[in-house]
Amino acid sequence: MASFYEGPVQRLIDEFGRLPGIGPKSAQRIAYYLLKAAPEDARRLAASIVEVKEKISWCRRCFNIAEGEECAICRDTRRDSTVLCVVEEPRDIVAIERTQEFRGRYHVLQGTISPIEGVGPDQLRIKDLLHRIPEEGVEEVILATNPNTDGEVTAMYLAKVLTPLGLRVTRIASGLPVGGDLEYADEVTLGRALEGRRVVDG
Amino acid sequence: MASFYEGPVQRLIDEFGRLPGIGPKSAQRIAYYLLKAAPEDARRLAASIVEVKEKISWCRRCFNIAEGEECAICRDTRRDSTVLCVVEEPRDIVAIERTQEFRGRYHVLQGTISPIEGVGPDQLRIKDLLHRIPEEGVEEVILATNPNTDGEVTAMYLAKVLTPLGLRVTRIASGLPVGGDLEYADEVTLGRALEGRRVVDG
Repeated sequence: MASFYEGPVQRLIDEFGRLPGIGPKSAQRIAYYLLKAAPEDARRLAASIVEVKEKISWCRRCFNIAEGEECAICRDTRRDSTVLCVVEEPRDIVAIERTQEFRGRYHVLQGTISPIEGVGPDQLRIKDLLHRIPEEGVEEVILATNPNTDGEVTAMYLAKVLTPLGLRVTRIASGLPVGGDLEYADEVTLGRALEGRRVVDG
Repeated sequence: MASFYEGPVQRLIDEFGRLPGIGPKSAQRIAYYLLKAAPEDARRLAASIVEVKEKISWCRRCFNIAEGEECAICRDTRRDSTVLCVVEEPRDIVAIERTQEFRGRYHVLQGTISPIEGVGPDQLRIKDLLHRIPEEGVEEVILATNPNTDGEVTAMYLAKVLTPLGLRVTRIASGLPVGGDLEYADEVTLGRALEGRRVVDG
């Protein structure tokens, strides 16, 4: 598409077009929105981008996002350090925290093993995980990677590495979502739900 | 949704969530992308927002976007000033310029008459349009607002105001899109295509 826009407008469209999930049409729509927006609104957006890059980095312990050296969860001394929940990304921590079911600590792999995208164990935060386990007296590691191909491969790899260390290694359950319908469940999920069935105390 | 994010991350998500077409999930995805992005890439995005607000304003003649007082089209003395194409937004100029069929000038209304959203003729750049017509010796005004309800209402209003000035007032054609299929055309479009039929020189 030839450029019919004045330089700064085209640059703005190009920059937004690089963000995930924003195509050229959306980028153009956002550019017009910003052209019409109050100057202070646009400035605040720009400032929030600069601020996040200046203030936020990775927690040196668990690789969650952190303002400062350690994230809020690692700084919280009331959390149980004997249970460690391994997740793919910081957003997974947000999802688990929302359940209010978990009082242990986390470790963020920052990705999954993915042969297709050429990501092996060395590109993930697995060495850091292995260092933490004896240092923090971890007794159980919960593998909470996503229940998809890459997540399963990563969980299987970690189980193989961690089990010989004499830890309890667990995997989050797969099955029917609560409120879901057997009729509409895919067969893999339903198969997992059957496989993971439990005795009901009656 | 309670905030589980460090302040600057949450602020970034909030700011992106205000942009058109970006929901909370997309905003979160973009925030993670920016957290992982190279600092110079994030800085460039922020700078492009600041730059556009500093350098770009509305062309004082046609209300297109302009770097400086007048837009590139108004500055171009080779453009035919006797034909004026009236559009809703600057992006419509980009669409028409892409056809390379039009060598006249433009006037951007910056919206449409919309009773539902409470926009009347006074909130559009119609007064400025009426000033331009005698000043620039305009002989034909092409009404190129969108062929939807608001665009049609706006075109009808302008036709009523402009025709008494002794101008040629035209409306862009509605009909089947080129490459389209009669079978799949909606009945309104097909009706317009019939209504707008022309004699074919054979």
